[in-house]
Amino acid sequence: MDYTFLLELALILVFTKVFGIIMKKLGLPQVVGAIVAGLLLGGAIWSPLTGGAFVPVRASDTLSIIAEIGVVMIMFSAGLETDMNELKSTGPVAALIAVCGVMVPLGLGFLVAMPFFGIGDFKAVISCVFIGVIITATSVSITVETLKELGKLKGKVGTAILSAAIIDDVIGIIILTVVTGLDNPSGAGAGAAAADVVLKTVLFFVCAIGIGMLLNKLFKWLVKKYPHRRRVPIMGLAVCFLYAYSAEHFFGIADITGAYLAGIILSNLKETGYIENKIDIGSYMIFSPVFFASIGIKTTFEGINPSILLFALLFVAAGLVSKIVGCGAAAKVCGFNAKDSLKIGIGMIARGEVALIVAQKGIESGIVPSVYLSAVIVLVIVSSLLAPVLLKLLFKADAKREMLIKSA
Amino acid sequence: MDYTFLLELALILVFTKVFGIIMKKLGLPQVVGAIVAGLLLGGAIWSPLTGGAFVPVRASDTLSIIAEIGVVMIMFSAGLETDMNELKSTGPVAALIAVCGVMVPLGLGFLVAMPFFGIGDFKAVISCVFIGVIITATSVSITVETLKELGKLKGKVGTAILSAAIIDDVIGIIILTVVTGLDNPSGAGAGAAAADVVLKTVLFFVCAIGIGMLLNKLFKWLVKKYPHRRRVPIMGLAVCFLYAYSAEHFFGIADITGAYLAGIILSNLKETGYIENKIDIGSYMIFSPVFFASIGIKTTFEGINPSILLFALLFVAAGLVSKIVGCGAAAKVCGFNAKDSLKIGIGMIARGEVALIVAQKGIESGIVPSVYLSAVIVLVIVSSLLAPVLLKLLFKADAKREMLIKSA
Repeated sequence: MDYTFLLELALILVFTKVFGIIMKKLGLPQVVGAIVAGLLLGGAIWSPLTGGAFVPVRASDTLSIIAEIGVVMIMFSAGLETDMNELKSTGPVAALIAVCGVMVPLGLGFLVAMPFFGIGDFKAVISCVFIGVIITATSVSITVETLKELGKLKGKVGTAILSAAIIDDVIGIIILTVVTGLDNPSGAGAGAAAADVVLKTVLFFVCAIGIGMLLNKLFKWLVKKYPHRRRVPIMGLAVCFLYAYSAEHFFGIADITGAYLAGIILSNLKETGYIENKIDIGSYMIFSPVFFASIGIKTTFEGINPSILLFALLFVAAGLVSKIVGCGAAAKVCGFNAKDSLKIGIGMIARGEVALIVAQKGIESGIVPSVYLSAVIVLVIVSSLLAPVLLKLLFKADAKREMLIKSA
Repeated sequence: MDYTFLLELALILVFTKVFGIIMKKLGLPQVVGAIVAGLLLGGAIWSPLTGGAFVPVRASDTLSIIAEIGVVMIMFSAGLETDMNELKSTGPVAALIAVCGVMVPLGLGFLVAMPFFGIGDFKAVISCVFIGVIITATSVSITVETLKELGKLKGKVGTAILSAAIIDDVIGIIILTVVTGLDNPSGAGAGAAAADVVLKTVLFFVCAIGIGMLLNKLFKWLVKKYPHRRRVPIMGLAVCFLYAYSAEHFFGIADITGAYLAGIILSNLKETGYIENKIDIGSYMIFSPVFFASIGIKTTFEGINPSILLFALLFVAAGLVSKIVGCGAAAKVCGFNAKDSLKIGIGMIARGEVALIVAQKGIESGIVPSVYLSAVIVLVIVSSLLAPVLLKLLFKADAKREMLIKSA
């Protein structure tokens, strides 16, 4: 056995914690520190200068899997914190925010890609659509962590962001499947593929909620019979993993959607807080530092030329603006005030794993050349850094205003 | 990404917990339940009948690494619980127990192997010695978990077992290196290899304890400045991983020895209990169930013939008797009473990862044919099942007697 993973875990724990503390002192969220730690450990900054030497931690299967467990646990914990009564009241609102937050990025992404890919033939059009698809999927985990840190996850804004991100994920996956289906020359046609995806999605939610209602009853009995016993959080985590796996395996839906749903199912127990506490400790001791650091570790800045640089600039701008405008406008229409609409728009800008995975799928199928991946990576970093920073500023400004009003 | 690991983790969590609860109801330790869960999940029982079909969880790199993190965390936690004052007073005693607990198995293993391998040539003699080497290494983690469950880890017996197991590990590794060195025809000679190993071991302890004294001061400052903050257990875990890695990487010593030493270094802080609590939660939520289940999962009963069966019987008997007699007699000589000597002997019988790793090393270098691995696996299972069961019985009998005396 190669024991390097022990060294890597030690480095990740020390660096994410130290940079987290530094960022906190600077008034920035700790997750930014964890990503910066990842950038340093992965050598993204000096790697092009040293030719790949002096890289303490390289991306590996081991880290990917620990990171994946991390993101699943973060989303499960977010689900546990969800206030279902509030989700019910924000449901239609969240749906509108999600739809606008998918359509506007899709359109703007297409427009940005046009000068670079052209729209001469069907394949080029598909490539342009695909660039749009990459920026549709919000990676809500960074926003979740930030909102948690600020104690705002359960508020109206937090619930709207989370609910919209769930719906956004589903819509994003449907569009991805349709586009890759359309690109597939041997396929049974886009219509059949799209119908299949819609069917699977509906089936997933029906099954997950149906079984979830039984599980909820089972856990209510378990909690009553065995209060404050290890078996409750352990079985809860097993349900989380099972839902995450089933979503991917049987329905082709992101594992984090399954994990979040599992969390919602267990969100109204007398011991939900107890479960969440154990999950959070398990998560922050290893898994979530590895997840956030691995975003930085996976990043490289190699192979960038002026054309790609220009594309990256436009792409990043499109990614940020489209979510703020799309989601923000939808929120405003739904009755949120201007400040809260802006918060929702900004809460949705963060891109992460999903954008990278979608991009890699496009590269694998030859829809997009691999050199464009760097632009996606820049969007992931910039949006991951901006989302928490801007959110924190907006919420702090609010708090200050409230204080002034109170003291007046 | 292949998401099977999420299903596997869910199955392991559910099965280890359910069988753990069942075993507890039957008065057996929970770890036995976890190993049984592993045997069921890994299909060891029906796999020969079904030709490998219906195996829910197969051994994989992912599970191995999570299991390895698990065993490292268990040993770190055991180190944190060590009472240094008691270790100091039991030091020479532990050394004698360890030496006898290595020499007696080595001799008995050699005798058992003789009729099967012969001693006609040098290579055959080495094979016989190697069979002895396989049964020298005690796997103390199961005993640790059992003693913890019984609340006896900090007692005289617990400390003697743990200290002896540490020393036993070091002696075992030295003998292993010497034997494989002797078998290596191109080597620089056994003498040089042995000297190298001794030097490395001494160096490891000097470095680990030297740096440990500085780290201890650093943590005392950290705990005083930031009481009850996440950074303390996180940095503690980082030290544990760093020590585990350094032991393997720089000194060729088992990672668990490094982890245990790291625990000892942090065992006298004002917040040792706080660190231990967070480590334990992180451990029992995922890592330690995976570790104990994976022992069962890795097991197969294939390719066994009458000769191997006879060898396995003698080998298992030698493995059990030699530790009980060797360690028990040494303990008795050192002044333990008969009951406690028996407990120490039985506490040392458990074999695990190390025995399997040593056996696999022997198979890789062609010293022992691969079919003999099944005997080692049987010893691992039998001793892992017997050690906790017998320990529990002995401690319970004691408790009963004490109750009778008190009530008289």
